[in-house]
Amino acid sequence: MSVYEELKQRGLVLPAPPARGGVYTPVKQVGNLLFVSGQGPVLDGVARYVGKVGAERSVEDGQEAARICILNTLALVEQHIGDLNRVKNVVKLLGLVNSADGFNRQPEVINGASQLLVDLFGDRGWHARSAIGSNELPGDITVEIESIFEI
Amino acid sequence: MSVYEELKQRGLVLPAPPARGGVYTPVKQVGNLLFVSGQGPVLDGVARYVGKVGAERSVEDGQEAARICILNTLALVEQHIGDLNRVKNVVKLLGLVNSADGFNRQPEVINGASQLLVDLFGDRGWHARSAIGSNELPGDITVEIESIFEI
Amino acid sequence: MSVYEELKQRGLVLPAPPARGGVYTPVKQVGNLLFVSGQGPVLDGVARYVGKVGAERSVEDGQEAARICILNTLALVEQHIGDLNRVKNVVKLLGLVNSADGFNRQPEVINGASQLLVDLFGDRGWHARSAIGSNELPGDITVEIESIFEI
Repeated sequence: MSVYEELKQRGLVLPAPPARGGVYTPVKQVGNLLFVSGQGPVLDGVARYVGKVGAERSVEDGQEAARICILNTLALVEQHIGDLNRVKNVVKLLGLVNSADGFNRQPEVINGASQLLVDLFGDRGWHARSAIGSNELPGDITVEIESIFEI
Repeated sequence: MSVYEELKQRGLVLPAPPARGGVYTPVKQVGNLLFVSGQGPVLDGVARYVGKVGAERSVEDGQEAARICILNTLALVEQHIGDLNRVKNVVKLLGLVNSADGFNRQPEVINGASQLLVDLFGDRGWHARSAIGSNELPGDITVEIESIFEI
Repeated sequence: MSVYEELKQRGLVLPAPPARGGVYTPVKQVGNLLFVSGQGPVLDGVARYVGKVGAERSVEDGQEAARICILNTLALVEQHIGDLNRVKNVVKLLGLVNSADGFNRQPEVINGASQLLVDLFGDRGWHARSAIGSNELPGDITVEIESIFEI
């Protein structure tokens, strides 16, 4: 089944590709690898999840933030390659969780991103990953995810 | 000398490949590159080093934690490629140290990992690296290391 | 125009390649990719910017620190490949900002690095990037940047 059918089945729509938040390019291609800049839980220019997990934000909030990071990532990958079915593999995620003191469940938060990728891409969606805490993220976003794809 | 003889000379044994801690694959291969998911100082399912360097944990604790991260990494690489002598190069480490306020000796901690790789792989073991602090890591582990290998 | 003319026009001189701060190699090449170890705002062995942005350091300090990180990176790349005009693409930066509680303008800080790369390399200088906060960095440096180049 195509990635687009998987999205539709879940009631998901790719957002407009997010505006850049600095002097960088959202996707840089080297050979068949796409390096995607760190994405946040921003939709229509507004950060939907800000604040730290373990304080103002729940694990569930963080998971939903992680899903939005991935939808933004996929919107940018689609903008770059034209068709998400051209993705051969999701290679790697670096998932950063804005973490309150004593919050240590970063992997559960980033699972929100990883499960969506596996759901959408099947076997090709399984990826290497690190899930870590950060004391502060840009604009106080709850999650930031950078990624590498193979096409 | 083979990697296995180097391990034996140091009295080291590869642990069983650690169980996954989330929705990801421990090693993702793209061409001749292996992207290895972030590993912690976990043996037999138990985190052997938890807590922050500069508070509950010493630099020496952190170095030993970093060595366990690498042994887990090598166990996963072996599981993926069958024989560690097939490693052509250790490419890069990202070393995260669970850091108490004011602790700034992250490179010394991650040297525990880097020195082991150089000892085991010789010239092929020299790698690029970043050593950084994190305010919180999964399960409060003392060190987390993600890595890239070339085969 | 060559990278060296761009440097000269801006009154910039590449520093001596910085000494290693641990057991690693500053640049590791795999095929046509150069993985460059995390660099700090160190010149002649002295950290020029230490302390956290949002506390002891301003955003402008952080931007200048980020520029020094890039000059050190370029010095190491030149040492490895002999001529910076052989750089085909700047691929990716991971920019870490030593961040005080509540400081959330990491992208502005890392723009100091990114703008310099775009100025020096033109279209080839545009890169993917993540800008994140860290609670502690080695030697309390204000910024650390790791990078990937294509030659």
